[in-house]
Amino acid sequence: MSNAIPEPVTKLIEAFSRLPGVGPKSASRLTYFLLRAPDEVSQRLSDALRDLKSQTRFCSTCYNITVNDPCPICSDPRRDHHVIAVVEEPLDVLAIERTGSFDGLYHVLHGAISPINGIGVDDVKIRELVQRVEKGDTLEIIIATNPGYEGDATAMYIQQQLASKGVKITRLARGLPVGGDIEYVDAVTLSRALQGRSEL
Amino acid sequence: MSNAIPEPVTKLIEAFSRLPGVGPKSASRLTYFLLRAPDEVSQRLSDALRDLKSQTRFCSTCYNITVNDPCPICSDPRRDHHVIAVVEEPLDVLAIERTGSFDGLYHVLHGAISPINGIGVDDVKIRELVQRVEKGDTLEIIIATNPGYEGDATAMYIQQQLASKGVKITRLARGLPVGGDIEYVDAVTLSRALQGRSEL
Repeated sequence: MSNAIPEPVTKLIEAFSRLPGVGPKSASRLTYFLLRAPDEVSQRLSDALRDLKSQTRFCSTCYNITVNDPCPICSDPRRDHHVIAVVEEPLDVLAIERTGSFDGLYHVLHGAISPINGIGVDDVKIRELVQRVEKGDTLEIIIATNPGYEGDATAMYIQQQLASKGVKITRLARGLPVGGDIEYVDAVTLSRALQGRSEL
Repeated sequence: MSNAIPEPVTKLIEAFSRLPGVGPKSASRLTYFLLRAPDEVSQRLSDALRDLKSQTRFCSTCYNITVNDPCPICSDPRRDHHVIAVVEEPLDVLAIERTGSFDGLYHVLHGAISPINGIGVDDVKIRELVQRVEKGDTLEIIIATNPGYEGDATAMYIQQQLASKGVKITRLARGLPVGGDIEYVDAVTLSRALQGRSEL
């Protein structure tokens, strides 16, 4: 076996295997794809990986990934600096930006409280959020953690921590997804949609 | 939008998206995973990618991927140099090595003839195989291309090219996969298994 695979190949297979959702079989396939692809494909990936960490950092205000600190969102004077949307991941910032219906700031927690996965309140950026609110500019905190057990627990904890700070705390509405079909919607979502029904 | 994603991040997402089976969503997820993972994870992947092409080449005899030319299999005197298994991809070499029931040499075609994908007879290493056989050491060519339209066409073409060279040409048996269930086996495989039935 060891005869058949040169070391640079096994090393790349191993490195790919450490990525989430990439098993040993896909790791081999990716590696052998790159062996046959033009040099430029693996070179570009290699360079991008090298630059990812060296050229980015966390914004010291909102903890989103950024090249410059503070990040372009935090330093944009046209945005509403009184409203902060609290999200779990940088990708959630993208999702909300994509809607075009939010012009406030963000706070990226980098996770959600999850005792089962050993993620406690100090492993996510909640203390940093409290300190940010204590500085006094914030009027509303929109908690945009994922709907689900861990996102709910995180939202609840944040609400407790901020209860005495005199800011309005809201949470994204739960209900039927647009384009969804009531017949196929799960019972929890449907029950939330009923509780949150609005007058026409 | 452009506000929200720093360039080193989009560059890596783009580079991941060029890999087969990695869509834009998985590319984002891999990138944000690496942003949170220890530096060493992305560094190791970056280094392995850089070394993949610079430290490997094709064996000039069998066209398998190798660090040294000729490759360890071609230069192993304990292997049977009279038998060559012809495979489509380097991964097929691994699969056959894993069986432990073959001690001959290999010839890696790097593809199969596929007019529909624009892959002609000169795009795979068939001419190199014919030249190798013409050197005279080979007694048997085992065609181990994939069972299927393209692998069959490739096998047929190779057989024509080698017909006059005085070597025995065989092909891997088709039949029921071990552990398979006749009820679920496709009709083509089952019909091949019937044609190729052997006496007990």
